Amino acid sequence: MNYMLGLRCIKCGKEYQAAPGVYTCPRCGPVAGILDVVYDYQKIKNNHSRQLLAASEDYSMFRYSAFLPLNPKTPRPHLRIGWTPLYRPPGLAGALGFQNLYIKDEGQNPTASLKDRASAIAVIRAVEEGATTIACSSTGNAASSLAGNAAAMGLTAYIFVPGRAPQGKVAQLLIFGANVISVQGSYDDAFRLSAQAIERWGWYNRNAATNPYLVEGKKTVAMEIAEQLNWEVPDWIAVSVGDGCTIAGVWKGFRDLYRVGWIDKLPKLLGVQSSGCSPLVDSFLENRPWRPAEENTIADSIAVGVPRNPEKALQAVKESGGTMVAVSDEDILDAMRLLGRTSGIFGEPAGVTGLAGLRYLAGNGVIGSGETIVAIVTGNGLKDVQNAIAAAGEPIRIEPSLEQLVKELKWRGLD
Amino acid sequence: MNYMLGLRCIKCGKEYQAAPGVYTCPRCGPVAGILDVVYDYQKIKNNHSRQLLAASEDYSMFRYSAFLPLNPKTPRPHLRIGWTPLYRPPGLAGALGFQNLYIKDEGQNPTASLKDRASAIAVIRAVEEGATTIACSSTGNAASSLAGNAAAMGLTAYIFVPGRAPQGKVAQLLIFGANVISVQGSYDDAFRLSAQAIERWGWYNRNAATNPYLVEGKKTVAMEIAEQLNWEVPDWIAVSVGDGCTIAGVWKGFRDLYRVGWIDKLPKLLGVQSSGCSPLVDSFLENRPWRPAEENTIADSIAVGVPRNPEKALQAVKESGGTMVAVSDEDILDAMRLLGRTSGIFGEPAGVTGLAGLRYLAGNGVIGSGETIVAIVTGNGLKDVQNAIAAAGEPIRIEPSLEQLVKELKWRGLD
Repeated sequence: MNYMLGLRCIKCGKEYQAAPGVYTCPRCGPVAGILDVVYDYQKIKNNHSRQLLAASEDYSMFRYSAFLPLNPKTPRPHLRIGWTPLYRPPGLAGALGFQNLYIKDEGQNPTASLKDRASAIAVIRAVEEGATTIACSSTGNAASSLAGNAAAMGLTAYIFVPGRAPQGKVAQLLIFGANVISVQGSYDDAFRLSAQAIERWGWYNRNAATNPYLVEGKKTVAMEIAEQLNWEVPDWIAVSVGDGCTIAGVWKGFRDLYRVGWIDKLPKLLGVQSSGCSPLVDSFLENRPWRPAEENTIADSIAVGVPRNPEKALQAVKESGGTMVAVSDEDILDAMRLLGRTSGIFGEPAGVTGLAGLRYLAGNGVIGSGETIVAIVTGNGLKDVQNAIAAAGEPIRIEPSLEQLVKELKWRGLD
Repeated sequence: MNYMLGLRCIKCGKEYQAAPGVYTCPRCGPVAGILDVVYDYQKIKNNHSRQLLAASEDYSMFRYSAFLPLNPKTPRPHLRIGWTPLYRPPGLAGALGFQNLYIKDEGQNPTASLKDRASAIAVIRAVEEGATTIACSSTGNAASSLAGNAAAMGLTAYIFVPGRAPQGKVAQLLIFGANVISVQGSYDDAFRLSAQAIERWGWYNRNAATNPYLVEGKKTVAMEIAEQLNWEVPDWIAVSVGDGCTIAGVWKGFRDLYRVGWIDKLPKLLGVQSSGCSPLVDSFLENRPWRPAEENTIADSIAVGVPRNPEKALQAVKESGGTMVAVSDEDILDAMRLLGRTSGIFGEPAGVTGLAGLRYLAGNGVIGSGETIVAIVTGNGLKDVQNAIAAAGEPIRIEPSLEQLVKELKWRGLD
């Protein structure tokens, strides 16, 4: 059994029974009518507690399975997903002027991004619904995580990526045995083609905004943050925003914990986009409906000009009393360098965009220097080596001679 | 306090007090005179137990700190190193015909390789010895792990890499803020130049074979395997071999546990090299001293023509009653594909070489199909995307049109 009661449209509030193929609200349509999973929180509260959880030896996202829309008996991928480390790097805190700054390193997931949490849910639900093939479109991380999780579960995967997806991510897909369709166009083109194909062939749909279950996996990152901080909820969570599903998931995680009384406050959310593609930030700051935007940023994972989950994301930030900012690609590369040099953590561009936003706000009074902040680093920098090189420069190339080394280091002031 | 008694030369047996700068046996010289850390095993036995360990909440390599040559009070890097997952992927076991096959995924370490275990020891010992700068030469993974751990500890790092080191690894170094010297020559050239520079500037030396403490970090992978298998020691451990330090570390880990009575048998070691660079396999199989070899393999992390720790490695395999094999680069690419498709695990070429060796031996009677085997995947495939693409091919590139997709999938037999 699980504690899921059903699905509720975030626009009109109508409730639906969970069933194969029920993904969006028919009344409100596939874009506005995003469904949200509803649980019997009273029952969760009766049967579970922080104390019981503390005794669990499951150090993965599935330690929170009371809050997941899964049959506990369905097989799960064998990969260790979640329970990623929460670090408190002193050098980074000093550099930004925040005393209580934590990094949640989601690059430590099996396929090296937070998306593993959503893809795990997808492959388990696919098996529950009797599917053998699963598909999605993605800027890269959802794809590689789906491919890895599908391989672990023995499912066939069809993955639609935009032509610009970085090589590292595409290589992952191919190694995991997925059928990879590189769509020569934008993310939106890839998304639309995947939707058509999913309908034509009847594959299980892992598209994040459309499939209402995926955000339930993502929310476990928030639950881990709360537990790792001993249930002291941070004042702020900083995270990058593309489609809007991740920040919506973070919010749902904290809200679920609040509903069952395991935490007594909610954090403010800082949602960050690249200024090269900031439809949701612009909407938020100008207090107007969002409009499609160009996809003009190195942060490929959040280069989403037509976000698929805009309402949940905007609602989450507003409800939390938080804010949104856009940062330049140069700010993002700076944040990669800063995080690496001070902390030994290598984030991809979109992965460090939340941190870049924090840095952008540092000292302007929005966030107090003593407030507790968690920046979620959503993916590992090894996925996108070209941008890392753009951020960090080139090595010192020399012949194997000590004399030459002495000269070279002296010249650079490094000896 | 710790339980270290001193250092003993593996060649002549002479013992030395541990002190800054004491790295190799002066009588036997820096190549033959490798020193081994000696502990007071009786005291460890008196003060520690498997039961006490089971209560530890430290899920990192430092849960085995009783067996480490570190002052417990020295600060440690904040990164989560070790306690990597041990998987039992059913599809992989079926494909190889081994019923009890496990994968220890060392690519899940912070900088994505097993080398983090050694580098953590290096940066802690450096701080204990009052150093502020640390250096090494490396084919890549030791380097990136040293750079990451040095950044986390606030140390300056000088890293010498051979010109052929893959971009992903070099990018990691640069992001971590290390001073990277790309030596236009072989690994041996890089090693020699680093040794000269370390002597000239007095930097702390993290070269793996020379520094006797590093293998102590590596041994924790064996301790984890034993504990994760509930102290049932596997029949075989398969692992790739380059310099020889890793397999020596694995052996030391099991021997330490055996010495304190926590395990009651020792595994056989399967040491695997690429046939493009197999000085130790050739020495083992032909029962003769090793000779320098060409470095002609895609598995860059084990492309070591002049291994720095040959004796410890060969001794370990012989003592264990195990064996060694060489596999072709094609076998290695096959193993990458197989591991990815069946398990959702992405290993770099050297990372899967142990598995490739297992596959090579499958069915020939050396290893029984019912024996328990752990293959250590030593590093993540994201570090070397070019070879992953060589292994896995290219995606299907199409325009955003369902019609074209239908045609393309039909043509490929994928619809």
